[in-house]
Amino acid sequence: MRVFIAGMDGYIGWPLAMYLASRGHEVGGADLFFRRAWVEEVGSWSAIPIRPIEERLEAFEEAFGKQIAFFEGDLRNSDFVHGCFESFRPEAIVHLGEQPSAPYSMIDLERTTFTQLNNVQGTLNILYALRAICPEAHLVKLGTMGEYGTPNVPIPEGFFEVEYRGRKDTLPFPRQPGSFYHLSKVHDSHNIMLACKIWGIRSTDLMQGVVYGTWTDETQADERLVTRFDFDGVFGTVVNRFCVQADIGYPLSVYGTGGQTRGYINLRDSLRCMELAIENPPERGEYRVFNQFTEIFSVRKIAENVKEAAERLGIRVHIDHLENPRVELEEHFYEADNRRLLDLGLEPHKMVGALEGMLKDLMIYREREAAREDAIAPNVWWSRVLERASD
Amino acid sequence: MRVFIAGMDGYIGWPLAMYLASRGHEVGGADLFFRRAWVEEVGSWSAIPIRPIEERLEAFEEAFGKQIAFFEGDLRNSDFVHGCFESFRPEAIVHLGEQPSAPYSMIDLERTTFTQLNNVQGTLNILYALRAICPEAHLVKLGTMGEYGTPNVPIPEGFFEVEYRGRKDTLPFPRQPGSFYHLSKVHDSHNIMLACKIWGIRSTDLMQGVVYGTWTDETQADERLVTRFDFDGVFGTVVNRFCVQADIGYPLSVYGTGGQTRGYINLRDSLRCMELAIENPPERGEYRVFNQFTEIFSVRKIAENVKEAAERLGIRVHIDHLENPRVELEEHFYEADNRRLLDLGLEPHKMVGALEGMLKDLMIYREREAAREDAIAPNVWWSRVLERASD
Repeated sequence: MRVFIAGMDGYIGWPLAMYLASRGHEVGGADLFFRRAWVEEVGSWSAIPIRPIEERLEAFEEAFGKQIAFFEGDLRNSDFVHGCFESFRPEAIVHLGEQPSAPYSMIDLERTTFTQLNNVQGTLNILYALRAICPEAHLVKLGTMGEYGTPNVPIPEGFFEVEYRGRKDTLPFPRQPGSFYHLSKVHDSHNIMLACKIWGIRSTDLMQGVVYGTWTDETQADERLVTRFDFDGVFGTVVNRFCVQADIGYPLSVYGTGGQTRGYINLRDSLRCMELAIENPPERGEYRVFNQFTEIFSVRKIAENVKEAAERLGIRVHIDHLENPRVELEEHFYEADNRRLLDLGLEPHKMVGALEGMLKDLMIYREREAAREDAIAPNVWWSRVLERASD
Repeated sequence: MRVFIAGMDGYIGWPLAMYLASRGHEVGGADLFFRRAWVEEVGSWSAIPIRPIEERLEAFEEAFGKQIAFFEGDLRNSDFVHGCFESFRPEAIVHLGEQPSAPYSMIDLERTTFTQLNNVQGTLNILYALRAICPEAHLVKLGTMGEYGTPNVPIPEGFFEVEYRGRKDTLPFPRQPGSFYHLSKVHDSHNIMLACKIWGIRSTDLMQGVVYGTWTDETQADERLVTRFDFDGVFGTVVNRFCVQADIGYPLSVYGTGGQTRGYINLRDSLRCMELAIENPPERGEYRVFNQFTEIFSVRKIAENVKEAAERLGIRVHIDHLENPRVELEEHFYEADNRRLLDLGLEPHKMVGALEGMLKDLMIYREREAAREDAIAPNVWWSRVLERASD
């Protein structure tokens, strides 16, 4: 199948391109290298050093004998998106090309606005180009479990049947996300849902949990094929950040009590999920939602797991509880469905089985990590002004 | 109270400014006259000729002895919004400054993108400026009943208590709007909900029904004080458009069967609702929702009501059923709560009692209406490409 990946240079985008191309799909993708710039902007870099896209593509061809098409450009430019689709004629489009950090979106008005406008406009351009050029194509949008927030009822996969005042309906499950970034994903979800309804577009919305992992089968084929690995307080997500913290002897920074509970997924499973979605497309006009996570943990539990894995490797780890920079419940009910991808054939990896390997991979880059340890502490506060007002 | 109106030159904004100023509030507002330009862009004009803002402000001061502060500028410019609030120091902000037409948002990618980016960015700028400059101020956002769509269960005011798999929670009622414009309002609702939660902003989200009416007490004081009245297929909403159609002998254009059922509200009641919201602000951190409509009708029923009113005035009216340009259910369940504004003291006007007066007002401008009758027919198709694909 011809699969187009928007955001092909990112943590997930690059391994996905290789994963699909090495399994016989024809892969093309676009990027403008924003992620590289943003991480630099917040004073950090990837723990695992990554190559420029040209080198990546070359190395992949050497190792796997397959070409991946690359288009450099801005998804906010509708002519660019149109041109990509005209030239590549995708049958499936995986949309990873968005600003993906909650803290980044909460820094200030400029970053809030950039995040929402960038993400919404890119998705609108993709929807319109898809409609015009390849209306049969399947849009696989990467959403996030964070779109749902932490309701006091179990979280279904996108829709739920409710009985309300004696009547029944199947409704989209309400969205209560906790950052302007997560909100941009909710905006996208709503826009895509309408496009499916009025234009007959087919789409899968993957509500992904927090992704962790240092490698995939393809990244291991050549050291030029590795994917990025962020650990700073803005782009580093919790498992990955904890592993780097453990590696460099920096206390694991649990925000608040650490009772915040979320869904998690291994990078390798994430790729498999996207493959399953692509290979089992919905009908024309269908907007379907898969919850894409394999395990549920509290942050506290993850810190303990990382500590134990590190100590098995002889690394002593201290767990710190910092004042929570976010506004969120620290102790709450959390239960969410994830049957649909399992039913399609996903065979999940366990986090506890992956942590030692991650830590070993990261040890190689201990100096690079230590060199950017100033970027690890949280420094974006969700409620800054509220506090000032109540002083 | 010092009330700032974003979008003060519009159909509702201008009468609201006069209504509040004449009742003792200190009123300021901003506009960039986009609405005037958009209606011209789609080949139409206001049936009732309106004056430039300077003349309006002057005439109001002559008639009522009160000044209204005006700031000309773009809500997408955060410095402008910041400057308005710095200078005016609002205690309440009524946000009417958005692109308000569903068909306009569905014309093409450019208009979809403009609508969503304009509306989202303006609201983000208002939220951030409010937080920084007047964190105690009350944000009254004009939403629309269209945010809810047409679910098969009754529509509560914003939130509903659900029991799901044996657990209970009070959740935001799911949003299933039918156009990119309505979606922009949903995006705003979600963004405001978060701002209330994390910054302690107080906000009322008024889910307004379709507004109709030619006059308010203040517009009648001087002919320079009238408000605009749109009847074209893009900016003219159904009751207003039907009245003009009746007036010029143009068949009332019911889309499809006309079973589409919605909430409606008289322009004078709309002003009163906003006054009630302003004078009864929520607590800090509260995001509350009022459904702002007074009656529920099908489009078919409205056409009949307009026909009857016109025939009482000796005008013969023909009702036409056109192919529906929108993608929407034409026959469906519809029930929605509207208790909260009634409980605050709203005394609604009835639509049937208003139609004759509207028709009489419009007769004066019959020539202007006839001169733009080409702009009345619907020419924006929600599903254009789907149809092309299935040809």
